[in-house]
Amino acid sequence: MLPQHFDLLKGLVNTNYVEQAQQARNSRSKQVTALLTQRRLPDVGWKEEDIQLLLEEMASFDTNNFQGNVGVGEREGRVISDLVRRRHFGLTHGIGRSGDVMAEQPKAAGSSLIVQLTKYLALDAIRLAGIKAVKACAVLPAATGLTMTLVFLALRQMRPEGRYVVWSRIDQKSCFKAIGAAGLEPIVVELKPIEGTDALGTDIEGMQAAIERVGADKVLCICTTTSTFAPRVPDFIDEVAMMASKLNVPHVINNAYGLQCSKCTHLIEMGCRRGRVDAFVQSTDKNFMVPVGGAIVAGPSSTLVDKVSNLYPGRASMGPVLDLFITLLSLGASGWTGLLQERKENAKWFEEQLATACQKLGLRVLKARLTHLMAASAAWKKGSLPGWLAGN
Amino acid sequence: MLPQHFDLLKGLVNTNYVEQAQQARNSRSKQVTALLTQRRLPDVGWKEEDIQLLLEEMASFDTNNFQGNVGVGEREGRVISDLVRRRHFGLTHGIGRSGDVMAEQPKAAGSSLIVQLTKYLALDAIRLAGIKAVKACAVLPAATGLTMTLVFLALRQMRPEGRYVVWSRIDQKSCFKAIGAAGLEPIVVELKPIEGTDALGTDIEGMQAAIERVGADKVLCICTTTSTFAPRVPDFIDEVAMMASKLNVPHVINNAYGLQCSKCTHLIEMGCRRGRVDAFVQSTDKNFMVPVGGAIVAGPSSTLVDKVSNLYPGRASMGPVLDLFITLLSLGASGWTGLLQERKENAKWFEEQLATACQKLGLRVLKARLTHLMAASAAWKKGSLPGWLAGN
Amino acid sequence: MLPQHFDLLKGLVNTNYVEQAQQARNSRSKQVTALLTQRRLPDVGWKEEDIQLLLEEMASFDTNNFQGNVGVGEREGRVISDLVRRRHFGLTHGIGRSGDVMAEQPKAAGSSLIVQLTKYLALDAIRLAGIKAVKACAVLPAATGLTMTLVFLALRQMRPEGRYVVWSRIDQKSCFKAIGAAGLEPIVVELKPIEGTDALGTDIEGMQAAIERVGADKVLCICTTTSTFAPRVPDFIDEVAMMASKLNVPHVINNAYGLQCSKCTHLIEMGCRRGRVDAFVQSTDKNFMVPVGGAIVAGPSSTLVDKVSNLYPGRASMGPVLDLFITLLSLGASGWTGLLQERKENAKWFEEQLATACQKLGLRVLKARLTHLMAASAAWKKGSLPGWLAGN
Amino acid sequence: MLPQHFDLLKGLVNTNYVEQAQQARNSRSKQVTALLTQRRLPDVGWKEEDIQLLLEEMASFDTNNFQGNVGVGEREGRVISDLVRRRHFGLTHGIGRSGDVMAEQPKAAGSSLIVQLTKYLALDAIRLAGIKAVKACAVLPAATGLTMTLVFLALRQMRPEGRYVVWSRIDQKSCFKAIGAAGLEPIVVELKPIEGTDALGTDIEGMQAAIERVGADKVLCICTTTSTFAPRVPDFIDEVAMMASKLNVPHVINNAYGLQCSKCTHLIEMGCRRGRVDAFVQSTDKNFMVPVGGAIVAGPSSTLVDKVSNLYPGRASMGPVLDLFITLLSLGASGWTGLLQERKENAKWFEEQLATACQKLGLRVLKARLTHLMAASAAWKKGSLPGWLAGN
Repeated sequence: MLPQHFDLLKGLVNTNYVEQAQQARNSRSKQVTALLTQRRLPDVGWKEEDIQLLLEEMASFDTNNFQGNVGVGEREGRVISDLVRRRHFGLTHGIGRSGDVMAEQPKAAGSSLIVQLTKYLALDAIRLAGIKAVKACAVLPAATGLTMTLVFLALRQMRPEGRYVVWSRIDQKSCFKAIGAAGLEPIVVELKPIEGTDALGTDIEGMQAAIERVGADKVLCICTTTSTFAPRVPDFIDEVAMMASKLNVPHVINNAYGLQCSKCTHLIEMGCRRGRVDAFVQSTDKNFMVPVGGAIVAGPSSTLVDKVSNLYPGRASMGPVLDLFITLLSLGASGWTGLLQERKENAKWFEEQLATACQKLGLRVLKARLTHLMAASAAWKKGSLPGWLAGN
Repeated sequence: MLPQHFDLLKGLVNTNYVEQAQQARNSRSKQVTALLTQRRLPDVGWKEEDIQLLLEEMASFDTNNFQGNVGVGEREGRVISDLVRRRHFGLTHGIGRSGDVMAEQPKAAGSSLIVQLTKYLALDAIRLAGIKAVKACAVLPAATGLTMTLVFLALRQMRPEGRYVVWSRIDQKSCFKAIGAAGLEPIVVELKPIEGTDALGTDIEGMQAAIERVGADKVLCICTTTSTFAPRVPDFIDEVAMMASKLNVPHVINNAYGLQCSKCTHLIEMGCRRGRVDAFVQSTDKNFMVPVGGAIVAGPSSTLVDKVSNLYPGRASMGPVLDLFITLLSLGASGWTGLLQERKENAKWFEEQLATACQKLGLRVLKARLTHLMAASAAWKKGSLPGWLAGN
Repeated sequence: MLPQHFDLLKGLVNTNYVEQAQQARNSRSKQVTALLTQRRLPDVGWKEEDIQLLLEEMASFDTNNFQGNVGVGEREGRVISDLVRRRHFGLTHGIGRSGDVMAEQPKAAGSSLIVQLTKYLALDAIRLAGIKAVKACAVLPAATGLTMTLVFLALRQMRPEGRYVVWSRIDQKSCFKAIGAAGLEPIVVELKPIEGTDALGTDIEGMQAAIERVGADKVLCICTTTSTFAPRVPDFIDEVAMMASKLNVPHVINNAYGLQCSKCTHLIEMGCRRGRVDAFVQSTDKNFMVPVGGAIVAGPSSTLVDKVSNLYPGRASMGPVLDLFITLLSLGASGWTGLLQERKENAKWFEEQLATACQKLGLRVLKARLTHLMAASAAWKKGSLPGWLAGN
Repeated sequence: MLPQHFDLLKGLVNTNYVEQAQQARNSRSKQVTALLTQRRLPDVGWKEEDIQLLLEEMASFDTNNFQGNVGVGEREGRVISDLVRRRHFGLTHGIGRSGDVMAEQPKAAGSSLIVQLTKYLALDAIRLAGIKAVKACAVLPAATGLTMTLVFLALRQMRPEGRYVVWSRIDQKSCFKAIGAAGLEPIVVELKPIEGTDALGTDIEGMQAAIERVGADKVLCICTTTSTFAPRVPDFIDEVAMMASKLNVPHVINNAYGLQCSKCTHLIEMGCRRGRVDAFVQSTDKNFMVPVGGAIVAGPSSTLVDKVSNLYPGRASMGPVLDLFITLLSLGASGWTGLLQERKENAKWFEEQLATACQKLGLRVLKARLTHLMAASAAWKKGSLPGWLAGN
């Protein structure tokens, strides 16, 4: 409803009530203005109804939803099942154009707007999580693994001689496969025990040796990881970043579910400030609790992020972007930082419970600095522990 | 989104696309303007998305949906189940006030608007169905039976001496019960065979005699019926109306599912023009294909309609009004008249099929003028007949 | 999915996962079994998904949802707008038959089941709220006011001489109108100051005198109220009930939003045990936080409840029943009693805040025993007070 | 509801109605049985309600929807926004495992089932569209462009020497980018005018020459296209396939929106039968009218299809699979073949209109054998032409 409609309403219901309605309209309108001008997470999360209304209004800007429109081309966002149309709020064009997966689409102004806004909201969320150095990001409809592959492929176009990915070992299949999928060869650098602890950490010297062995110009990039399972601790991102800078080798970070952990984001922040970080990749599902299927590639400069977005051939699903947009709007800054804070407290609580439980069972908790991630993922919801852990 | 928002969008996506979006916004806005100014069925039905958007915008005018609102009174439209809230689009205040079930509610401008608009749309639909004499109507959240009771109770407040309802017999329980429920006594007037046919019709003289026997001032009203099963034909509404006028006795018509049948609406139109009709009542489910639960009480003047609406103690469910509002908007004038036309053709087709089938079975179709209703209800969807009828 | 389907699944996914799925199926199935056998609120509320699944399964039992079904009669539950159909989960037949609004419908087994189950759940909720004497109830798609009218009309069929309703005055329009709408005459009995307090209470002697003045057989019923605004306190239900019993006059209680207040339910419980209560009526929206539009008529015996249900002419909207069914399932016994408890605590908190605020403003809180209702309704959500009350 | 529940229902409603309900249950159950055993498109499309019920039942097999389940691991399908959860019907785990994007997931039996069933339904739809030679397919949550890249990357793991993609030129950016994104070099083979027509077609000799120039073992694959714009006609798939077989070079077909066009599917069928086709890729949105974001990679053997699915690193969005599953179930075999037939008729109608319009404007329609695709995409909905074409 537009301002002129409210005058028309006055013939239908009492003027006072119309004015009340108009005030309600204005307060919702201010929310939208704030979103469009500030382009960051709202302080307080939006109500579901307000989000839905915005989505439906934006969907009405896509040509497939125009009144009386019948498209005869190939990019018309036609959807034959009404159940499918509804679950996408009528946003059926997907995202991107042949040239760039983040580019706006001529026939889908509404979808394009959501893509842009989601990018801004995601940037804000990353900053709030502690990586203030972030300058650019793209939200891709591909989970972390495939997004890592895309990052490698993009780097390859910029660095055609690069054949190797120097990789600090982690026993998780996805990133390893991502290297192979991109047609590259991993050089696995084994971990090193960290003195005085049970932990295994990055072997910086080993990495440097590996790079020098094959020649820095043959190395596509160094790949480090923040999200690990004990006793492996997050890679020493800052030290690797400094080495990457020194050797002039790109540095990509697999930050799969590290955005929720201040230790991980601090490491990345330090890496960006002190050394070289070309991109860090994080999953949307693990960090923002949306369905599996999206990842954010971000960086302290837009060079590699843009290259990835530009490499992407053709259009892509809007689903993961839409899920993230809804979720970030509904959380707001306070919801997001609240979750981060809660995770911290839960992690602490969990460690205590774990220590107690272990003591009872005659076990001990490994001394492994920075291994908060396991606890992290376990502890989104307090009280969620299996009985034997929650203990007695 | 308001006009000023579109300028803000220009920083986010290409100006051309924003202008396209704005045009889409304007065309939807025109639709709303037309509805609010013309207050009749749109020529062409609205798309589901546009209806939903309007509902959600109107819901946002109800105080329970205000941002930051916390109501502390008793009329706050609180709903604890989100599933329930959603199925009502957040419209939870119901309709009416203590004084009048059609009255607007101070805390629910949006709900009140929908009530008013539905009234106008229903009036238009009744006119398009052939009753041009209609001047007022109220959509009640009570099916035909209870609505008849409410009409009788309202008449009673206007005519306290009235104890009897003179009723042209029809073998259907609901209206008979409605009379009893109102604490009144039915005077059943038997039907008369119509010469030269197999039909049973209204005994006009019998009715007059019945009225004169108890005294016209003791008669609360005459009650006639348009929706009948063969061999009973619709009551001779026009003749009864003339008698009602002559004897100065109110006349209420049970038009349960007669709105869809041009023969029935023509009879009522004639009755209104030539004689006395105080109100005619029709179900929303049978005529407009919404879930059971609503009825429209209408009349050639607003006297009795207003009295009924005014009699209603307290608030009431908005559900049946909402269903009718959605349905009328989605049908539009063309959809509604199209259905009426289709019914006519189906009725004809059905009669032919029936004749053929009967001939085969050695039966004959009753000659009963005006008995289209059975066919009517059977024939909303062509091809819907059981095999033995359609078949050969 | 039925047990045999799980074997078929084994060809599609790993047997272990199928077994896991089957266990999930069984645990949901147990929930359903408990509901059908115990017919009371589940201990813990159901998840929204489980409720929706049950609704959709039950809807599939209504003939309008049969596969390949094409109905040709008049009671086919046809719905033309898909948006409308969805918001009713396909339950479109409404409730009741001509004979009885609580009766099952031949074409709508699913809807009929929901009506029956809702009745049982409502009975359990009333008992949990403190009225253990309740034996029967009917959930009507009419708000409190109209339901009071229906109760009066039903009583009238049982007590045709009754013309007067003896009514302990309360300055709220709805019940007064309900008496008039039923064609009855109210005899208003003024309140009496309660010594040593600021409160106004029931004038028992005045009531008895009023009854004796017109003659007990001319009195249709006594009508009392539990939900009041200070300084009027709830009627002395137990004393009135004893008098009603002594004088052999029916006694109907307007318990509009009294179910949520243990003081009110205690009064009714005492009335039922010690004297005569024919029925008590409560709104579904105010007590169970559903949209406006339903009421429960209940009683310590089924006589009047059945009569009301039996009086109702024709079918009726299922909406309010459906909302209550969903809400009661989602609350469960623990959710419902939790709300009652929370209200008690909030009322206490509110009284303290009120006292403090009044003191500051040089006002005093009225001494009015039992006037918790105002606080009650205000206090569903703690922290909901306007600034000047909460403040300092 | 399970069989045992129906006995319990008998205590609540009439036995006859329960039996009716049970029959309804059985008929729905048969539908499910047919789907699970036949694993092909149902003859007639399912009703939306039945699809939704199946989705919800399957979702209840995923651990995140288990009653009382609290997951503490990293793969728990946690979703914080209820709006997001609902639009995915609770299916939040995504698809695949690290090892294989089509593999079943231990914690998501329901999602896994849908992935498997969608694969079977898609295979059936491809066969019905005319490619009977198809033996395997995978539905990927990536649009055609990226899926082509994935196919190239998979081929590269099988054929590490392959560096070139021999590509029959088409002026559309997406496939060209797909080659580059995979880090490969395109060898563009120009088109040849087809004698006696205005058309441009495949230069078979030119292709062979190009392959021989760089050496067949250096050629990763030949890439042909079926979906083209006039005057370019679809590549001569069968002839290319024979050459590919002869030269022992893989052959990948970009069949972007060719599934809907019998000419294109016939070409692929011929290619598979007479020569070598390793895979053909088609978009889900253009062929099945779902939102943009998915593609099907299919082939006459499972070798390359499996390799692609196996190459995919990590999990992926389920969205595009879900959209296709819903759409194929709702179309059924008759709906799908009906659309194909309708497209054919519309294409013919369109050509006639185009000829007439051109004649009026003094233009002529190009003689270009097989160029039905433009018409194809234009003609999904008859009557959709701009005024100047629909003409007079």
